[in-house]
Amino acid sequence: MTAYKIEFEPIGRRGECPAGQSLLGCARRLGIGIASVCGGQGTCRSCKVQILDGNTSEATSSETEWLSADELKTGWRLACQAYPLSDCKLHIPAESMTAPQRLQLEWLEVRTRPEPAVKGYQVKLQPPSLSDLTADADRLLQSLNRQHKLHCHRVDIELLRHLPPQLRSLDWKCQAAVRDDEVTALSPWQSAQLGLAVDLGTTKIAAYLVDLKEGRTLAAKGVMNPQISYGEDVVSRIQAAISSIETAEKLQKVVAEALNQLISDLYAQVNADQNEIVDMVVVGNTAMHHLFLKLPVLQLAHSPFVPAVSHAVDVKARELGLHIAQGAYVHLLPNIAGFVGADHVAMLTATQNLWVKKDVVIALDIGTNTEVSLIREGKITSVSCASGPAFEGGHIKGGMRAAPGAIERVRIDSQGVHYQTVDAIPPVGICGSGILDAMAQLYLAGIIDEGGRMKEEQARVRRQNNHLEFVLVEEDKKHKRSAVVITQNDIRELQLAKAAIRTGIQVLLEANNCSEEDITKVFIAGAFGTYIDISSAITIGMLPTLPLERFQQVGNAAGMGAKLALISLNKRAEAQMLSRKVRYLELASAPGFNQTFIQAGYLGRYRLLKGRREEIK
Amino acid sequence: MTAYKIEFEPIGRRGECPAGQSLLGCARRLGIGIASVCGGQGTCRSCKVQILDGNTSEATSSETEWLSADELKTGWRLACQAYPLSDCKLHIPAESMTAPQRLQLEWLEVRTRPEPAVKGYQVKLQPPSLSDLTADADRLLQSLNRQHKLHCHRVDIELLRHLPPQLRSLDWKCQAAVRDDEVTALSPWQSAQLGLAVDLGTTKIAAYLVDLKEGRTLAAKGVMNPQISYGEDVVSRIQAAISSIETAEKLQKVVAEALNQLISDLYAQVNADQNEIVDMVVVGNTAMHHLFLKLPVLQLAHSPFVPAVSHAVDVKARELGLHIAQGAYVHLLPNIAGFVGADHVAMLTATQNLWVKKDVVIALDIGTNTEVSLIREGKITSVSCASGPAFEGGHIKGGMRAAPGAIERVRIDSQGVHYQTVDAIPPVGICGSGILDAMAQLYLAGIIDEGGRMKEEQARVRRQNNHLEFVLVEEDKKHKRSAVVITQNDIRELQLAKAAIRTGIQVLLEANNCSEEDITKVFIAGAFGTYIDISSAITIGMLPTLPLERFQQVGNAAGMGAKLALISLNKRAEAQMLSRKVRYLELASAPGFNQTFIQAGYLGRYRLLKGRREEIK
Repeated sequence: MTAYKIEFEPIGRRGECPAGQSLLGCARRLGIGIASVCGGQGTCRSCKVQILDGNTSEATSSETEWLSADELKTGWRLACQAYPLSDCKLHIPAESMTAPQRLQLEWLEVRTRPEPAVKGYQVKLQPPSLSDLTADADRLLQSLNRQHKLHCHRVDIELLRHLPPQLRSLDWKCQAAVRDDEVTALSPWQSAQLGLAVDLGTTKIAAYLVDLKEGRTLAAKGVMNPQISYGEDVVSRIQAAISSIETAEKLQKVVAEALNQLISDLYAQVNADQNEIVDMVVVGNTAMHHLFLKLPVLQLAHSPFVPAVSHAVDVKARELGLHIAQGAYVHLLPNIAGFVGADHVAMLTATQNLWVKKDVVIALDIGTNTEVSLIREGKITSVSCASGPAFEGGHIKGGMRAAPGAIERVRIDSQGVHYQTVDAIPPVGICGSGILDAMAQLYLAGIIDEGGRMKEEQARVRRQNNHLEFVLVEEDKKHKRSAVVITQNDIRELQLAKAAIRTGIQVLLEANNCSEEDITKVFIAGAFGTYIDISSAITIGMLPTLPLERFQQVGNAAGMGAKLALISLNKRAEAQMLSRKVRYLELASAPGFNQTFIQAGYLGRYRLLKGRREEIK
Repeated sequence: MTAYKIEFEPIGRRGECPAGQSLLGCARRLGIGIASVCGGQGTCRSCKVQILDGNTSEATSSETEWLSADELKTGWRLACQAYPLSDCKLHIPAESMTAPQRLQLEWLEVRTRPEPAVKGYQVKLQPPSLSDLTADADRLLQSLNRQHKLHCHRVDIELLRHLPPQLRSLDWKCQAAVRDDEVTALSPWQSAQLGLAVDLGTTKIAAYLVDLKEGRTLAAKGVMNPQISYGEDVVSRIQAAISSIETAEKLQKVVAEALNQLISDLYAQVNADQNEIVDMVVVGNTAMHHLFLKLPVLQLAHSPFVPAVSHAVDVKARELGLHIAQGAYVHLLPNIAGFVGADHVAMLTATQNLWVKKDVVIALDIGTNTEVSLIREGKITSVSCASGPAFEGGHIKGGMRAAPGAIERVRIDSQGVHYQTVDAIPPVGICGSGILDAMAQLYLAGIIDEGGRMKEEQARVRRQNNHLEFVLVEEDKKHKRSAVVITQNDIRELQLAKAAIRTGIQVLLEANNCSEEDITKVFIAGAFGTYIDISSAITIGMLPTLPLERFQQVGNAAGMGAKLALISLNKRAEAQMLSRKVRYLELASAPGFNQTFIQAGYLGRYRLLKGRREEIK
């Protein structure tokens, strides 16, 4: 039987697909988790993939229904409908992935010419002799400068402490990592120059091991941020750090330890050595940034909420307790304000090539705190919206993170409630994208009204302890599994959360004399933003009603921005320039904020204008 | 009764001297230890001082006998013979001081225009507000750059960790310490900018607290190097460090602790605060330098004895465990070779203004290891002589350091043996300068011959356990004090030590095609070198026979060089240039070394030429 070789990007898996099997079927056989809400019936678009190379079957009527003409033209297909007719290479976008990849590792790869801050140079030295007593470090610098026409004149002190035995054991033939005028690491003649890009999220830490010469990601890994045990959100972590110096130190230490574990896992994956990791870029929100650098956060907790530092910071990795090459630095991208951090700068940097000057761009990084920027004619305006933990499952009765068993997709039709869980195991709760879907479906099914009021008379709506709730999944007494419900209170929480985001967008538009229709591109980043169904987000009025093709879910754009800054000094400079160009608005003090916020709480498709809401049919 | 105000430099003491009292008497009344071997009889030159200002009595015949016409013309007097006739200011040279000042603190003050690496700038900041959310560090940099036309763009990470509370407690008005483009410390609006110059000797550590703006030494203090318990000389310390990593770390730590104690003692003396100490320069021999930086020393222990690093090193003080201002650096002057270190570079830098281009200069830093440089027509050639511990009292039967009770001056005449001890307490042993004096006096009295052989028939020479020894001080049974003797073996040790130095000088002369008579200036630095009697050193053939005025005992010139590098970037650059210009000679591999060394072991006044020795009458 004929079989085709299929390559799945960005995860880099390859496998054979027997002729006559769909791409979804092939992925399942290989254990690659492509989402499939409708179960492969071609009645949803959750398994959308992009064909990068190779021939596939003609688009089916399902596909022409669910995908736009533009999408079809650019190779987008539904994996359940497309059959390979040759070897193929395909791209699985973040939103089509299921749980195992959920640690925010996916990104839209942006190519840039590698021009790293740290470069490796092969050097041969003459060993010292009675007629040449030059000191080891001076000998290294002289040979390096002569052989590569450089002007280095410093050797990191910690490297210096290892230099004499290292040079001798390498027999005076080595590779020197150079940053500016400083030699920061030494490795054998044939060795890689690796770097680490880290997105230090409040919930998750994603790390990417990158070949600095080629700009290629060699390995990636994500872990939960261990600071979670000190508080789920930024504010509670800040409070913890303020409460005692020991806690603040512990908060730094647990992150450093988690990173060290990530680092050793990553370099083991590629058979490298910690000495070969010669540079590192870290991005995170301002609080994560400060806690990681052990900077004080008291001033972040009180108005006017100013960071200790905004500009980019370079610090020796060892000063943060990180185990990479002896003299390697960590570069932290600049922050913008107390609640718009380096991760947002990284996202802006990463998406900069995705728009042109005439675009009006909205860039969102949705989380407990949602940073929103509007870019127009080269000007950037940013706000920070306190969207709260609802989208991460917090303050929601059945809420949970996108862990196995979390309901991540919901569809309600005449036959009832359909859902999909992370890892396809029986439901144990509901995560952000599921909550968003549920809210949109409840609204579309008329179970909640545009004001968010739940209708008691509807099927599956019940009253518990005098509170209304919609039963998404019935209790399973046999397996001792409780019901998963959406309560009236949950809806209220979600309304506040989504109103904050919509208000942020609206305030930015009005501050720039734009209207929603002017928006040509919307980039949505972040764990939650990656997996949400945009239609649902529009349906509940969280996002403005715009054609779907104007939206782009860019995955972990912050991590991508970190990687770009790692492999390119130009990108580092761009990030610094971007951060300086940003005008930061205090959302709550924007004119008409209250009025807009009230209107933005409504469900449905509408446009906002100066505090008025106009329904869109 | 009339009384005059007398000011004693460099120790900065002032006091009143009743008319009719000698300067020596006045010093004694004030507790200032001026040496006086002859007891104020005008029959030695040990109490020599220089009148800087004011009128004194006419020179006595003793003075015209003991001081040269040149010396008298430039204000040199014997303190026991000179009587003030007005208020006076006088300089006590290091060699005229007794013990309490013996921790190598004296120096010949060289003036240089202060142009420190770290400068303080007063800055006023606007506090942040809702309409100005600039981060603290960025706010500081912006105000600083604007108010002082600077281009700083970095704040030290440790300072950053203290910046937010500090700026607020200082009410946004502060003084910033700036080094290159980096803010390294913050202090109140009105505060000093202090620096610390350290001479890290094998035996002693001398530290000077300096006002960076004015280049003035505010306080000085010396302590013993606590590494002594790990070995008295450089070689044994190197062995200790090689023996285990823990010992190497301990060697660094004890020095850092001693320095921290010195630092806090010093800033307490001037009512300063550790945050005001914003810069530090350390000099030491190559081994001390390496141990202090925790650099490996294995390669210093084996031929070809290369340092890990020669060029100047800048390292954050905190990386060495030192407690000064948060972001302050320590600058270590460059080394020349495995056994010619930064202290010698510092000495060369400090004495550079004391000679002109046509001079032929010998600069010696006498210690266990004696570094000698010859400077001629701008070229510098250096050697290192293994002079051993004899001059510090090591390997000498009655030897001890210049501690209280050590015999430091010896005179033998027809009436017997005269001596002076440190602190004028009963003798307990003999230190370097005393040993040198004793050897010269024994030779002049004919008790030892030019070959160093002790003559048994002489008075006070006795045989103990079949070894000859000269009894300098008889046993005092009543007070249970043993005799202090000079043995035949002691003489042999001293001959080896002084031969090494004389050979070093000779090898340098021959390598530069010079003869002894060409030498126009000899600078002698170091603890021992400061206190020795030059005549005695000539008498035993340790130094070439040259007119006394060509010799200058420059005290702790290494410490002075450190201070110069502290207050002047130019001097730092000069030191770097000097160190690069030096041609280092391996003494033992110099042509004719053995022959010269044998001849240089002889006592008496002679000149050496290509391994021949020619007596000078």
